[in-house]
Amino acid sequence: MPLPTAALDELVTANRILAREGVVDAFGHASIRHPTRPDRYVMSRARAPECIEIDDLMEFTLEGAPVDTGGRTGYAERHIHGAIYERRSEVHAVVHHHSPAVIPFGITRTPVRPVMHMCASIGAEVPLWDSRDTFGDTNLLVTTMTMARDLAVALGEHPAVLMRGHGAVVAGASLREVVFNSIYLQLNAELQSRAAALGEITFLSDGEIDAVLATRAAFTFERAWEYWCRRAARPYDERPWAGPLAG
Amino acid sequence: MPLPTAALDELVTANRILAREGVVDAFGHASIRHPTRPDRYVMSRARAPECIEIDDLMEFTLEGAPVDTGGRTGYAERHIHGAIYERRSEVHAVVHHHSPAVIPFGITRTPVRPVMHMCASIGAEVPLWDSRDTFGDTNLLVTTMTMARDLAVALGEHPAVLMRGHGAVVAGASLREVVFNSIYLQLNAELQSRAAALGEITFLSDGEIDAVLATRAAFTFERAWEYWCRRAARPYDERPWAGPLAG
Amino acid sequence: MPLPTAALDELVTANRILAREGVVDAFGHASIRHPTRPDRYVMSRARAPECIEIDDLMEFTLEGAPVDTGGRTGYAERHIHGAIYERRSEVHAVVHHHSPAVIPFGITRTPVRPVMHMCASIGAEVPLWDSRDTFGDTNLLVTTMTMARDLAVALGEHPAVLMRGHGAVVAGASLREVVFNSIYLQLNAELQSRAAALGEITFLSDGEIDAVLATRAAFTFERAWEYWCRRAARPYDERPWAGPLAG
Amino acid sequence: MPLPTAALDELVTANRILAREGVVDAFGHASIRHPTRPDRYVMSRARAPECIEIDDLMEFTLEGAPVDTGGRTGYAERHIHGAIYERRSEVHAVVHHHSPAVIPFGITRTPVRPVMHMCASIGAEVPLWDSRDTFGDTNLLVTTMTMARDLAVALGEHPAVLMRGHGAVVAGASLREVVFNSIYLQLNAELQSRAAALGEITFLSDGEIDAVLATRAAFTFERAWEYWCRRAARPYDERPWAGPLAG
Repeated sequence: MPLPTAALDELVTANRILAREGVVDAFGHASIRHPTRPDRYVMSRARAPECIEIDDLMEFTLEGAPVDTGGRTGYAERHIHGAIYERRSEVHAVVHHHSPAVIPFGITRTPVRPVMHMCASIGAEVPLWDSRDTFGDTNLLVTTMTMARDLAVALGEHPAVLMRGHGAVVAGASLREVVFNSIYLQLNAELQSRAAALGEITFLSDGEIDAVLATRAAFTFERAWEYWCRRAARPYDERPWAGPLAG
Repeated sequence: MPLPTAALDELVTANRILAREGVVDAFGHASIRHPTRPDRYVMSRARAPECIEIDDLMEFTLEGAPVDTGGRTGYAERHIHGAIYERRSEVHAVVHHHSPAVIPFGITRTPVRPVMHMCASIGAEVPLWDSRDTFGDTNLLVTTMTMARDLAVALGEHPAVLMRGHGAVVAGASLREVVFNSIYLQLNAELQSRAAALGEITFLSDGEIDAVLATRAAFTFERAWEYWCRRAARPYDERPWAGPLAG
Repeated sequence: MPLPTAALDELVTANRILAREGVVDAFGHASIRHPTRPDRYVMSRARAPECIEIDDLMEFTLEGAPVDTGGRTGYAERHIHGAIYERRSEVHAVVHHHSPAVIPFGITRTPVRPVMHMCASIGAEVPLWDSRDTFGDTNLLVTTMTMARDLAVALGEHPAVLMRGHGAVVAGASLREVVFNSIYLQLNAELQSRAAALGEITFLSDGEIDAVLATRAAFTFERAWEYWCRRAARPYDERPWAGPLAG
Repeated sequence: MPLPTAALDELVTANRILAREGVVDAFGHASIRHPTRPDRYVMSRARAPECIEIDDLMEFTLEGAPVDTGGRTGYAERHIHGAIYERRSEVHAVVHHHSPAVIPFGITRTPVRPVMHMCASIGAEVPLWDSRDTFGDTNLLVTTMTMARDLAVALGEHPAVLMRGHGAVVAGASLREVVFNSIYLQLNAELQSRAAALGEITFLSDGEIDAVLATRAAFTFERAWEYWCRRAARPYDERPWAGPLAG
């Protein structure tokens, strides 16, 4: 079954938003799980997120095999997405990015922790994955399912994981959620960097993080999505696309 | 009595300016006290400030009840505004924002103090309100009049108050004043952060702050307002809207 | 004698460039000495630099009296310009600005010194003027010739002077030179701030600064001016305007 | 033989990209070796990179003599390019820039080392050249072949070299490669500055850098080039121009 245009448009928009907000540059990618085939996911051919059009979107099996290349080449690191969809059935969208605000935390092994209510959804703990721990000296790219599954284990049940010397991955129940958490992970890193230069930081307490997560409503994602669509010069569809499996 | 279009246009413009200058992102809001009904205030339905149109503006009682929803939903945190209008009769406009330059001061309990003449109007002292002190672990949102009144007490007679892990509130006699003070609170925080990395800061003295406030003229707000309108691609109305009570 | 349009256009362009490059916001101003009346200077009515049009430009005596108001009001701080033209006959252009990169140096009494060849023209030493030293607690604005002359003494023969808690003044032989030095003073401050966080700085030596100044050619200003015109969406006139006295 | 238009267009685009990405301002320049005359190189007349058009491009001998001025003046520092082409036959493109993120490293003698996989191509070591070591107090400009050859020795076989108080030079096998390495040198400097403020940095290991370089594919440059063309409002030609000698 072909994917509805609304779902594909939303994935194009997600890529454009991530570029506009500086979370991705020429590299990084976003995907959604296929709504009627949970054993597949959809993402662009290898192209900078800012340039992606609807015809660039391809289907892949969870192992990363393209269903129909149409002459297109997928991202070498698409396995990051497949391994997470394979491990966590509740995940319906994934973003991988190299946010310049976030990378300094990974390379100094400084924990990122929520400092502000809007950022609580990045989770009380953001684990750090270092490819060198298991795989030694590599080019750091996650180009095999073996590496991707190791990364997925490090992610565990968290909303996000840092990758040392590389970037981060954000996973969640919907595309709008993972875009939201990518942008607010970046903001939290920026705020935490600035605050570290001023003095000792009072982070959100575990109770506060729990309270934010318990009361977070869909309108939060929607209010931000409309704003980001406007900044990225993309039409705003107020109904987030939701297929039969996207809950 | 319906509000004059000039007043509504100015409120839309204020929201757009705050977005253009980076004081608000998808979240944050601005309000004005109703000019002929001091027991009411006007603000947008729950929407990102950059997206607000004149038809989004709603009237609320000081307790936060919408006068006529017209199918619209108000901001969950609108009570911040009502509690301040309730407590301070001279206040005719309020802004709540999450400026990323300001938040690091709240979470490190670093006092923000004026370092430059243009920023003197943020006040010699900017108090810090921490929702956890009275309300314990919450989602940090000010969604009840009880919380909002507690915040209003912390604000006291000051032009601005910081909210730990959340943002800030600015209150004043006119909309152009609170927009001005929001932007210059942000600039002061930025300057103070940069200066803290260089050495010991000479802040404005209390006498200098008093002198700035005593001699501050309306043209200061006007010169900035014209500039910000231009940057936000909004028409500039050189007469600030002033209703019978806004004098 | 009315000023040639080319001279007025260049002054409008200078204001727009300073705004585009972030050296001024709603405040700050640029002036030129009148070419045939060295006892007069030309600057805009009180308006944000980004908004200035040719009809905003006014003539003033060195004491700051408008020659013909045409219903317009001058900047309260225009005396900064008059006092410098009065003291230094070789000066034909002045900029006063509040660059956010520069202010942290004044408020921490950290000397700004050239770290890069392009910035050598700010001078081996940039003196610091503190209005409080002579005038005590004021609103920091230079609104009298007495204050302005005190500032001009602090400037001395230097290309620039910092004003504690306020901003800076740049003076020079031509408008393109003072715009150039304003922008590169800002860049030097930015570079010096970043470098201070990394380690001990090797500044340009006095010999290097002298060598840059001795070999600096007009094409340096011109190459930059064309670029800044393009960014500010202003036509580029490759002949800098030079009246009989601007040599 | 006149150069193909595709090659000239690509050189104009390179200049515009470097300006758009903030690597150059009004100063800095990019060149390519002439494809059929390896004893010549091509670069713009002395003009800000953002303003360059195809008619500004000139041919020079490796000694820096213009082949046909057509009334145009070359950059005073073009010798940087000639000396590198002279010394390294495999180099087909050179960029000289003053990136504000990079300069703080040179003036504090802080080594720049790759912190992220995308930046590995700047090389495990970026040497630092200080004109004062050999030439004493100068205006820091590399305006003679003697100075340029000294700089080329410092560059050695590396992809990049820092110049104290001045900027950096990047050399490589193709224009798209040197633009890529210029932008990612800037990003690495930015990331390393931010990280230095947080804690001790884990740099890429030598083995990781080797692995990145060994597996780097042309598509990496292409994906970025398309993105940067879009941001610089330049048409994207998916075939990098490659003459008979450009390999």
